[in-house]
Amino acid sequence: MDSSQFRQAAHTAIEDIIQYYDNIHERPVLPSTSPGYLGPLLPDSAPQEGEEWSKIQADIERVIMPGLTHWQSPNFMAFFPCNSSFPGMLGEMYSSAFNSAAFNWICSPAVTELETIVMDWVAKLIALPDCYLSKGEGGGIIQGTASEVVVTAVVAARERFLRKRLADMEEGEEKLDKMAEMRGKLVALGSEHAHSSTQKAAIIAGTRFRSVPAPKESNFKVTGAALRKTIEELKSKGLEPYYFTATLGSTATCALDDFEGIAEVLKDYPDLWIHVDAAYAGSALVCPEYQHLTPVFANFDSFNFNLHKWLLVNFDCSAFFIKKRRDLTDTYSITPSYLRNEFSDSGLVTDYRDWQIPLGRRFRSLKAWFVLRTFGVNGLRSFIRRHIKLGEYFHSLLLGRKDLFMVQTGPDFALTTFSVNPRKLKHSATSADRPDPSHEAYLNDFTAGAEGQYRAEANEVTKAVYEKVNSRAEFFLTSTVICGIYIIRVVSATLSSEEKYLKRVFEVLIEAAEEVLRDREKGSERAEAKL
Amino acid sequence: MDSSQFRQAAHTAIEDIIQYYDNIHERPVLPSTSPGYLGPLLPDSAPQEGEEWSKIQADIERVIMPGLTHWQSPNFMAFFPCNSSFPGMLGEMYSSAFNSAAFNWICSPAVTELETIVMDWVAKLIALPDCYLSKGEGGGIIQGTASEVVVTAVVAARERFLRKRLADMEEGEEKLDKMAEMRGKLVALGSEHAHSSTQKAAIIAGTRFRSVPAPKESNFKVTGAALRKTIEELKSKGLEPYYFTATLGSTATCALDDFEGIAEVLKDYPDLWIHVDAAYAGSALVCPEYQHLTPVFANFDSFNFNLHKWLLVNFDCSAFFIKKRRDLTDTYSITPSYLRNEFSDSGLVTDYRDWQIPLGRRFRSLKAWFVLRTFGVNGLRSFIRRHIKLGEYFHSLLLGRKDLFMVQTGPDFALTTFSVNPRKLKHSATSADRPDPSHEAYLNDFTAGAEGQYRAEANEVTKAVYEKVNSRAEFFLTSTVICGIYIIRVVSATLSSEEKYLKRVFEVLIEAAEEVLRDREKGSERAEAKL
Repeated sequence: MDSSQFRQAAHTAIEDIIQYYDNIHERPVLPSTSPGYLGPLLPDSAPQEGEEWSKIQADIERVIMPGLTHWQSPNFMAFFPCNSSFPGMLGEMYSSAFNSAAFNWICSPAVTELETIVMDWVAKLIALPDCYLSKGEGGGIIQGTASEVVVTAVVAARERFLRKRLADMEEGEEKLDKMAEMRGKLVALGSEHAHSSTQKAAIIAGTRFRSVPAPKESNFKVTGAALRKTIEELKSKGLEPYYFTATLGSTATCALDDFEGIAEVLKDYPDLWIHVDAAYAGSALVCPEYQHLTPVFANFDSFNFNLHKWLLVNFDCSAFFIKKRRDLTDTYSITPSYLRNEFSDSGLVTDYRDWQIPLGRRFRSLKAWFVLRTFGVNGLRSFIRRHIKLGEYFHSLLLGRKDLFMVQTGPDFALTTFSVNPRKLKHSATSADRPDPSHEAYLNDFTAGAEGQYRAEANEVTKAVYEKVNSRAEFFLTSTVICGIYIIRVVSATLSSEEKYLKRVFEVLIEAAEEVLRDREKGSERAEAKL
Repeated sequence: MDSSQFRQAAHTAIEDIIQYYDNIHERPVLPSTSPGYLGPLLPDSAPQEGEEWSKIQADIERVIMPGLTHWQSPNFMAFFPCNSSFPGMLGEMYSSAFNSAAFNWICSPAVTELETIVMDWVAKLIALPDCYLSKGEGGGIIQGTASEVVVTAVVAARERFLRKRLADMEEGEEKLDKMAEMRGKLVALGSEHAHSSTQKAAIIAGTRFRSVPAPKESNFKVTGAALRKTIEELKSKGLEPYYFTATLGSTATCALDDFEGIAEVLKDYPDLWIHVDAAYAGSALVCPEYQHLTPVFANFDSFNFNLHKWLLVNFDCSAFFIKKRRDLTDTYSITPSYLRNEFSDSGLVTDYRDWQIPLGRRFRSLKAWFVLRTFGVNGLRSFIRRHIKLGEYFHSLLLGRKDLFMVQTGPDFALTTFSVNPRKLKHSATSADRPDPSHEAYLNDFTAGAEGQYRAEANEVTKAVYEKVNSRAEFFLTSTVICGIYIIRVVSATLSSEEKYLKRVFEVLIEAAEEVLRDREKGSERAEAKL
């Protein structure tokens, strides 16, 4: 493919992409393909001779499109968003053209330096404390995903803990044995609602994991008291907590851990590495109304959020900020002779490979730079606020149908979670119409186990409603179970999100709920008739 | 930026990229920027209001281009290549448009299924044994870098080793203590010339690392005997080797370890995980003339090579093949309730997140698919063979000037390494012109230490020549030290590589060598005159 063929091919690809974005709301958000759909559509080995672009391009619509889940669709309300944007795509285009494995400064100085500058921009944009800027002892680095960041922090925390505790021991066999013994006693901690990446990171690091309770009574957040209690319990068993993921916006409900309380605990356990995982909700910190949250982070060790979730930079772009970059380089720096060069040796440059697990690096700051400049601070703020408002709107719809739905959390950072009320069976038919939450019907029944029965039945109908909605493929939602409560999550935060889509998903939810409840009542009546 | 602004912007970006590729040979391959060049050229925070594309685009040429190292330039002969290509860029464009965090099948079935199919294509293309295909118990997955692959394999190897050894122990405190104790005795192994990523992976895994000798006498390869000796030494000390990186194309010289010998050793130590790192040279396996190397890999556990190095898929695209995918999922699979879905639960689909460290995944198979189809098997073979020939050409040039240069290794996979001969000082002036290697002047001097003196002086002049060439920024080469020998590496394997660039770099090397040797002789004469 020469330059002029590329020009032609790229123009057609751009038209494809524009068409895709302009009409994305018309496609069912979920594919209707079955597992293994693609195999029969493709040959089982690469072609012997090269093929024309037109043939390759036609296969996008023929075989790829039917298997895509459309994360950019306004009907995508599952997980958290993963927003792309036109300027982000332009950044990726240049990045793939300037293609390099930029593992150190001399491999492409612009790749390193733009990343340092853009990460400083981002730190300021979200009002992180100054200690996370590159001017001092800290700085930011782009990683692929929040889960990679967590592994990177956990392993660095493990090594820092051992270095501190064993600083006085001489190097040698005995120290290695002692390190192994201590490693076996180390415990990484995270909220019971923290993302599973902390548990996975603990496995990778070869240490233990323990979750810190964050019950409904504390709004699913880890309090300082709960963290302290867990630490004390572990220490009383001879175990050593060395790391804690504090969550700013948990996966299930967007809960915020009690950062002030956690900072208090840290005074008594200064060797604990506290990492703040703000993967999704961190983007909201671009708005001044959320920035009261950040000063306390000066007490912690590291912070990350994903610009590829809610800040319009296409995947992958997870911003990882560290207070003392030595805490990373002390673990990750290894310099064999083929990577030595005068610049790195001088200490005047940053070699980001020494801050991370992989060696090679893509030019990811380019797309972040394009997005920040194209939208500007104000553009990003209004983007976030638009979704906050949509969350409030959806929440208000739920409140208008307390007979059917019970809000469980939110709206928090545009996410609302709720369950479906099971109508108590064998009511008089008319009572189903009253606006009180169905929950009360169970609570007013003072027999033992009424609450438990309500929960079991609510979980059952909520799950049925959730499955019914997703099976229609018009909307994509996710559900989860939190402290025994089955909840449906709705978060609408794509570039194309609008009130009308939330109005529509609400209608679909009502229809599904009515159907599920009606079927359940019919089933119950039939069962009764048989008796 | 709306659709029509994007169209316009993308067209200008494509023209930029075409210009860049068409004229890349005219740019100095290395930037002349000093550390910190970029800071003063940019504002220190994101703009408050959005900016126009024309302003952003102009900054590419103004501030980014001066700081780029041009890896696509025919004058880039450093490290290993990192080739992009037009079809690869098109794949990246679509991938950034279809943007998703495809951590499981339902997140976008096409992302998972195309990856499985394309990795099978690749396995067949390079003649990997059938056990690495997805049909059986194995399969391929795309990772970012070879170093990530090595960490993933090392941690999985550690856990598999412990699972096997402690299979009979009941879960509980005692087992956890025993695991920690055993982990402290585990040793990851790699050739002394293996990439530093194995050592780094061992640190991350919290285990020890030991290198296996691969001296000049065995052509810098690890033999079965050397591996066995290292294992036996370690075991006699109560340590447990659990993992070995076998190298197909070492970083310094493209050495191949003795795979047949290693497979023999494995019969006696079946718990050892053998990973084959073919990061660069693996691409040559597309040519039948290299495929005799692969049958023995059926004895090993995993294999990887980087399509982003020598197979025209833009960075990042490291193909990781595993013989038993359970060896990965047994370590990396954790499924919290918010990631559960009927498809994953059914076991009918692949969830690649369970094969790897991070959760989220990009749609990287698209660019690999485009490249394989555009070039076809034959196109890729001639691409590789062209560079093999260029390597032979450069090698022949070196042989023509044995007075100045001594080939150390190669040409292997297009890489030749060499050192510069120091002329023995105080020769008669005429003897400098004879074609014999200067080394002989030292060897014919039967005084003690002549060989050592030769090596010290050769290292000194080779380093000086290397630095002189790179400082001119016309070519970018790398050097390294291997078994005490300072070598310059030349590998020319970009899309735009041609004989004329190798001819030119050879002229530059001659000039530099003559200058360095002349200056050295003058310095020596001056020193003598002073006496």
